[in-house]
Amino acid sequence: MGDNGGASLSAQLRRGDLLDPACPSREALKHVTSRWGVLTLMVLRDGTLRFSELRRRVGGVSERMLAQTLRWLEDDGLVARRSYPVVPPHVEYSLTPLGEEAAARVAALADWIETNLPRILAAQGEPAA
Amino acid sequence: MGDNGGASLSAQLRRGDLLDPACPSREALKHVTSRWGVLTLMVLRDGTLRFSELRRRVGGVSERMLAQTLRWLEDDGLVARRSYPVVPPHVEYSLTPLGEEAAARVAALADWIETNLPRILAAQGEPAA
Repeated sequence: MGDNGGASLSAQLRRGDLLDPACPSREALKHVTSRWGVLTLMVLRDGTLRFSELRRRVGGVSERMLAQTLRWLEDDGLVARRSYPVVPPHVEYSLTPLGEEAAARVAALADWIETNLPRILAAQGEPAA
Repeated sequence: MGDNGGASLSAQLRRGDLLDPACPSREALKHVTSRWGVLTLMVLRDGTLRFSELRRRVGGVSERMLAQTLRWLEDDGLVARRSYPVVPPHVEYSLTPLGEEAAARVAALADWIETNLPRILAAQGEPAA
């Protein structure tokens, strides 16, 4: 974007460019790779969950941060929110087909980190070269 | 970790658990998925770069944030820093073998976001269900 105006706006509608500070893909990256975004997407891969269940599974998240994260992911079309008109209110969250795709990539990265944590911790114990 | 003490410390040395707030994998996740962490890893997949080249490629990063990000990635064993004793100083950064593995996962996620930006933007334009 930037100097190119309309021409690159249409280019961007074809494909994002994360190295361009003005590209809206940066905002989507922020939502998906935020700490709670990563963990929420991971947990929702197991299936539909209520807010309280999600909060219990995603260790350490506050009610406020989980609500914010779900709103981001819902706005980006990655998470579907379904509310049932009952008392007390019953609200469920699940991945959309787009969200399933994103969550698979996020989970691959998360799984790599979990698996390779011993190597990362070993590196942290070494003096810098 | 948490209540389990020593037993789960050794378990964690086998594999991290991102859903556990006390697991050090959370810190590694933070470094790798920070905005500048993602972009730095992406750019370094193309090869060794000097600080100034890196900064030019990663659009919008400040000197301070890039230095902080590189320090994180270096501490985690993902990036190697090589400095040559010349005037003016010449410092190069490259991915370690561990960093290549992490960067491949990060790039898969980044590529998915760039490719699917049109679908994400389309979702943002829709009213919530």
